[in-house]
Amino acid sequence: MELSELVAHLQQQAAAQKLRLHEKNVYRILSALLATSDFWQLIDYADVPVPTGVLIVRELEQQGYVTIDSENGIFLTDQGRELVEKFHLVAPVNAHCPACEGRGYAYWLDKEFYRRFIEIAKDRPKPLRNYDQASVTPETTVARVQMLKHLGDLHQKEIIVLGAEDDLTGLAIAMTRLARRVLILDIDDRLIEFDRTIIAELGLTNAEAHVFDLRQPLPDEWVGAFDVFITDPPETHSAFRAFVARGIATLRGEGYSGYFGLTLRDASIFRWQEFQRILLNDLGVVVTDIIRNFNHYMNWPYHSETLAARIAPVKQPPRTIWYRSFWYRIETLPGFTRWNEPIQTDALYLDEEGSTT
Amino acid sequence: MELSELVAHLQQQAAAQKLRLHEKNVYRILSALLATSDFWQLIDYADVPVPTGVLIVRELEQQGYVTIDSENGIFLTDQGRELVEKFHLVAPVNAHCPACEGRGYAYWLDKEFYRRFIEIAKDRPKPLRNYDQASVTPETTVARVQMLKHLGDLHQKEIIVLGAEDDLTGLAIAMTRLARRVLILDIDDRLIEFDRTIIAELGLTNAEAHVFDLRQPLPDEWVGAFDVFITDPPETHSAFRAFVARGIATLRGEGYSGYFGLTLRDASIFRWQEFQRILLNDLGVVVTDIIRNFNHYMNWPYHSETLAARIAPVKQPPRTIWYRSFWYRIETLPGFTRWNEPIQTDALYLDEEGSTT
Repeated sequence: MELSELVAHLQQQAAAQKLRLHEKNVYRILSALLATSDFWQLIDYADVPVPTGVLIVRELEQQGYVTIDSENGIFLTDQGRELVEKFHLVAPVNAHCPACEGRGYAYWLDKEFYRRFIEIAKDRPKPLRNYDQASVTPETTVARVQMLKHLGDLHQKEIIVLGAEDDLTGLAIAMTRLARRVLILDIDDRLIEFDRTIIAELGLTNAEAHVFDLRQPLPDEWVGAFDVFITDPPETHSAFRAFVARGIATLRGEGYSGYFGLTLRDASIFRWQEFQRILLNDLGVVVTDIIRNFNHYMNWPYHSETLAARIAPVKQPPRTIWYRSFWYRIETLPGFTRWNEPIQTDALYLDEEGSTT
Repeated sequence: MELSELVAHLQQQAAAQKLRLHEKNVYRILSALLATSDFWQLIDYADVPVPTGVLIVRELEQQGYVTIDSENGIFLTDQGRELVEKFHLVAPVNAHCPACEGRGYAYWLDKEFYRRFIEIAKDRPKPLRNYDQASVTPETTVARVQMLKHLGDLHQKEIIVLGAEDDLTGLAIAMTRLARRVLILDIDDRLIEFDRTIIAELGLTNAEAHVFDLRQPLPDEWVGAFDVFITDPPETHSAFRAFVARGIATLRGEGYSGYFGLTLRDASIFRWQEFQRILLNDLGVVVTDIIRNFNHYMNWPYHSETLAARIAPVKQPPRTIWYRSFWYRIETLPGFTRWNEPIQTDALYLDEEGSTT
């Protein structure tokens, strides 16, 4: 079977599951197999959603290019190695800056702050499955704060954090004591309680935390009231509206900024194009930064209950960090839209491409 | 005068010059004035096109917020300092990773290659004004190569470099001996001759360099023939077509990638939104990376002849690097467009926002 045939065949199967892929996704999986036999690292290297990765790996097995050992991982066969050579594929190379983990902003620039944040974060509530929680590493959270500082989005700014406070981004911002106001919203009362306790203990007068369900419209007093928003949505269309579009609605006017993560583990690059069109065409903003794999997520305790674990061709849980997302920054421009409608769905976290909730 | 009045007044004047600005641009200039009195550094911090920066600085002078000393620079007056305090503005903070200059890819990861590139680059032709040339630092060029390597866009790939070979990006790629093919195009025969000499001296069999004017359509044999394109266009709409849209036309199919620089020194963030809409809507690609200030440009010998120098409120030439651009990466997706029409203009380099040619 030629690779073009294999890709065409895969695309048919993908379409039946409402998934999308192209030949480069297949090449990338094959390249990654030169570096790892671990399914989760494979997904990390290949930048495809888990269900798409499963589909490709299963088809490669079907065609005799890989063997799957559910205990030990995924391995190229001799036939697979021939295919890899035919297409001149080589193992992925890591050329990210080791000093900043490739983010461009170093978490260690303010060591004192980094250490204080880690001390606070050690007692944070454990991630919960029903809110799709998975915390980023402390290095990620601190690098987010550094980036805000670098871009003039921290000092004396009014900042709203919409959900994803399991990352403690709102708390970290408050801890700098540099923002004029930090408003932290999350649906999880454990996180809000945690933040409130620390805010009280540290005597942070500029920060407040509220339980809030982002499917609901924001109250008027928060619309058009902030300099900066920060969020980290699940990658469904409804969540993108609930988190990002609502974030944009909070901004004060033209030239104000927002930050959010988008992953390729629970959404395809095809979906990203849809999101980018929504940002540019419907919401009227401009994208100023997209930083690859800025956000590193610590493995979550409920992994074994996820769809990802159930459909994975191996039984091994992830042994290293494999879930990453890119960090977007946008700015509002004339004609931007303040969208703030209610969302009538329970399926905020899962769709055909998502699997890690 | 209230700041909102000042902004409205500035916007009127800007419109008369076909420039665009918003209040955050004014805030950013004021913040930058807390860190520097150098006009060129001011533009670097403020991320506005030179003509817009001039407009804002002149208006701030008019209103008594700054004084301009054409020999020594631009300084906040007492009234200016009051304004800055009223808006709680602080000086810009640098939190970029010092190890990689904020790029996320470190030029020093392969020291041997970095050194060899510098040795080759030391004899390169001097930048010419009539082709809008300004070379990036060797660190920038080498970091571009690292990024290609990291993203699987180098090993055994067929790569086309469309212009901007004063950066020697094509030559650097050829020097890795990792690409299957490198095709270098530039309008400047001095650069093509230089590349050809080095290619012959080093015995690089995978690289070729041709004089080519990108206002012309590419020959059919180069359309749909490459895995990766790289370019660094001037920021006019016609140059964006000539360099970037034509780059996309060279790509083999879906999932293939292109790299290009965009600056905020010769184009506004408003223009960027137009470019992003062209990428998403007209050309059908997706943006995968936008890396802030990845490209650092060495000051060019013809500075004093440029419009930027003529309209600058100071006589001092730049003393440090002030011209930077962001590095974009895109990928093609289903339905992407291969645009390859002739361009009938001489004004490839200059428009109302551009001034550094």
